[in-house]
Amino acid sequence: MKKAVFPGSFDPITQGHTEIIKRGTLIFDHITVAIGVNSQKKYLFSLEDRLKMLEACFVNYPQIGVAAYHGLTVDFAREQDAGFILRGLRSPQDLSYEQPIELINKHMAPDIETVHLLSSPKTAAISSTIVREVIKYKGDIDGLLPPEIVPFVRDSMY
Amino acid sequence: MKKAVFPGSFDPITQGHTEIIKRGTLIFDHITVAIGVNSQKKYLFSLEDRLKMLEACFVNYPQIGVAAYHGLTVDFAREQDAGFILRGLRSPQDLSYEQPIELINKHMAPDIETVHLLSSPKTAAISSTIVREVIKYKGDIDGLLPPEIVPFVRDSMY
Amino acid sequence: MKKAVFPGSFDPITQGHTEIIKRGTLIFDHITVAIGVNSQKKYLFSLEDRLKMLEACFVNYPQIGVAAYHGLTVDFAREQDAGFILRGLRSPQDLSYEQPIELINKHMAPDIETVHLLSSPKTAAISSTIVREVIKYKGDIDGLLPPEIVPFVRDSMY
Amino acid sequence: MKKAVFPGSFDPITQGHTEIIKRGTLIFDHITVAIGVNSQKKYLFSLEDRLKMLEACFVNYPQIGVAAYHGLTVDFAREQDAGFILRGLRSPQDLSYEQPIELINKHMAPDIETVHLLSSPKTAAISSTIVREVIKYKGDIDGLLPPEIVPFVRDSMY
Amino acid sequence: MKKAVFPGSFDPITQGHTEIIKRGTLIFDHITVAIGVNSQKKYLFSLEDRLKMLEACFVNYPQIGVAAYHGLTVDFAREQDAGFILRGLRSPQDLSYEQPIELINKHMAPDIETVHLLSSPKTAAISSTIVREVIKYKGDIDGLLPPEIVPFVRDSMY
Amino acid sequence: MKKAVFPGSFDPITQGHTEIIKRGTLIFDHITVAIGVNSQKKYLFSLEDRLKMLEACFVNYPQIGVAAYHGLTVDFAREQDAGFILRGLRSPQDLSYEQPIELINKHMAPDIETVHLLSSPKTAAISSTIVREVIKYKGDIDGLLPPEIVPFVRDSMY
Repeated sequence: MKKAVFPGSFDPITQGHTEIIKRGTLIFDHITVAIGVNSQKKYLFSLEDRLKMLEACFVNYPQIGVAAYHGLTVDFAREQDAGFILRGLRSPQDLSYEQPIELINKHMAPDIETVHLLSSPKTAAISSTIVREVIKYKGDIDGLLPPEIVPFVRDSMY
Repeated sequence: MKKAVFPGSFDPITQGHTEIIKRGTLIFDHITVAIGVNSQKKYLFSLEDRLKMLEACFVNYPQIGVAAYHGLTVDFAREQDAGFILRGLRSPQDLSYEQPIELINKHMAPDIETVHLLSSPKTAAISSTIVREVIKYKGDIDGLLPPEIVPFVRDSMY
Repeated sequence: MKKAVFPGSFDPITQGHTEIIKRGTLIFDHITVAIGVNSQKKYLFSLEDRLKMLEACFVNYPQIGVAAYHGLTVDFAREQDAGFILRGLRSPQDLSYEQPIELINKHMAPDIETVHLLSSPKTAAISSTIVREVIKYKGDIDGLLPPEIVPFVRDSMY
Repeated sequence: MKKAVFPGSFDPITQGHTEIIKRGTLIFDHITVAIGVNSQKKYLFSLEDRLKMLEACFVNYPQIGVAAYHGLTVDFAREQDAGFILRGLRSPQDLSYEQPIELINKHMAPDIETVHLLSSPKTAAISSTIVREVIKYKGDIDGLLPPEIVPFVRDSMY
Repeated sequence: MKKAVFPGSFDPITQGHTEIIKRGTLIFDHITVAIGVNSQKKYLFSLEDRLKMLEACFVNYPQIGVAAYHGLTVDFAREQDAGFILRGLRSPQDLSYEQPIELINKHMAPDIETVHLLSSPKTAAISSTIVREVIKYKGDIDGLLPPEIVPFVRDSMY
Repeated sequence: MKKAVFPGSFDPITQGHTEIIKRGTLIFDHITVAIGVNSQKKYLFSLEDRLKMLEACFVNYPQIGVAAYHGLTVDFAREQDAGFILRGLRSPQDLSYEQPIELINKHMAPDIETVHLLSSPKTAAISSTIVREVIKYKGDIDGLLPPEIVPFVRDSMY
């Protein structure tokens, strides 16, 4: 059984994330979507709300689990008995960011492989950073966020 | 009448900005140089001072106006009845940053086009970030800032 | 009257080209889509066929003309009395390619401005190079080429 | 059963290729290493030699097969009943090259997923292009080519 | 006598830094490894500790000195009578960051040359940023930090 | 005595090359500007003409020599007893190209260091490829080529 972890902040989860995760289930038997908790970062949504949103997105996907973790992603993957980390790539810029992280992960955990899927053109422009700006200025979030969480996020905007 | 908005923080406006804006008047009948106000960011110069500096740069350019706005750039462009956003590109790195912003703007406002001009080699290295470092350490700002604001900025350095 | 040249090989013209050209008519009063003739390159389609395809695409666009030229793009622009060159950017990679060309053009013709529009996600992956591969191996060209030339290209494939 | 195709020219196969392919067997149950035949390109090694070299590399790997194909990669993948294309990424530059190819493949074959693994630092500098230069000038190929084919290639150099 | 400055935050110094500095001594007669002090940044290690770590790394290298400075790097280089700044490049991304800094330095100090060495594959993934994450989460720092400072850093982790 | 090789095709040598080479003499005691001869490439200028142009550029620079070589650059450097290869970088794109070449050179000749200088903004857009286009179409070569060879190249254009 091939298990993977899809780590991130998910502040909030976007259509870009859900696309990669769902395509990932074609490769892996199980994917844990996992919120890396960093007590020094400020988030727009609380950890509780981010977990709720993840759950809302994947409630009908038995292959996909949801979790939060402290510490290194590779340590969490091992706890989960997952041999893979799944990551999406939107652009060469993304790869510049991902490449050193992956190599250091490999240095610390040579037994864990990172697998990359490229975003589709529809979602390649979507980042949580940009979405938070759109939320802050009450712009149109349709098409940017998974439909399952749009009402919740819209409520938070007013 | 073709109207454009040139948005930015202008903390402070540089020779790079003024070059693009002035070349932009070859394309557009009117350009509003507009400071996007973000209450959560810290600036070196106050909004008032940044507006004054913009005004000093363009006082002799009837095609160029100056403003500040809250909220989304595309909403401000619509208020101004501007069909275009003008942006400068210094490098492929810049485009990596601009591309998702433009695509999300297009998602929210399909009627607004973003037009890009490439910086000339003389100004391609100039960014407000680097200029702020030069100011902080009392380096030589000549050639980096528009001559109209050099005395004001130099005064602020002592 | 603001006139622009959109230069290229157009071997063949793609949906990516037509998108940029049509959006360009929002900025310019007239655009000449111009095939740069390079006698040392090998083309899949003859110059005659490439011109025919351009004409088919823009027959209903009075703002858009079609031409072929020998020599430097900036010399052709001047002949056309065009003050602008219009170019599309699909990616930072594209900009790496365009930037030195534009700077050398500026060196030779400081009076001509190059204006860039970013491709939409739908067309950002389309290049004439890839399309020629698809044609060569009889893949599906729908959505890659302007509908006006699909029948002609399909005929050429059999 | 998850099957993948790893397409390329393999002129010659390098340590970079074998690393990605072997790591790919952790993900896929079967990988076909497939030489795309392009009658218009010139190769250093004949198709026959390139196939022999592939076979020498993978003779002890029952999960890995070897083949040559004409036409589109996605068509070959379908013939093989393979739902995946496996690709290595050495650098952001590589991704700039791979991204449009993958998107056009997706356009023609939405049912086939492309999966990317990043090269390790040891092999990230190795390309068939550079290796051919080293061979041409009789440089040291150890560490660049799979040990199984080094004697054969060295023989070809004298 | 050719003297260079190798500026940085060194929070902490990594194997990537020491590799470049030691290779730099093949080019320069003397290199000052210099901590740029920025009172507005937060560091993981105090300036005192960072200086101690630098000293531990280069105690046996008479060609290499250690210092801290306030203000502009070019001003410090002049104080040191150093005609060169030495910098490492790990990736095109790094160059995107370095290029404008170097050009502004040249603008302020045309007499000072910046010289670049590319990181080896072994160290190209190592950054102080990633190392701080590994430290924070008590991951394996062996191979990432110079052996001379590993015990000190490990002590700081518990 | 620190000796370096500056390898290239120099078809023709540009202002970009001469800038880097002359700045290189601040670092190295001697630089050999060396034409790598590749019998399979087509050149605009003959080897003899390219050598003559190099000589014209550096006749007054006793620190700079001129040569042609067959085979690997690292082998030629060793023949010259040169411990360094000097290269210019115009852009991140350039580094993407240079990085694997340097790493393979290091693999074959660990004793030879490659040193990089960044082009100034004035020359960063100049490449021999673009210059050949300008020559072919009889554009303005002033400012692109070293003044010493402009008359010779201009003669070749008519």
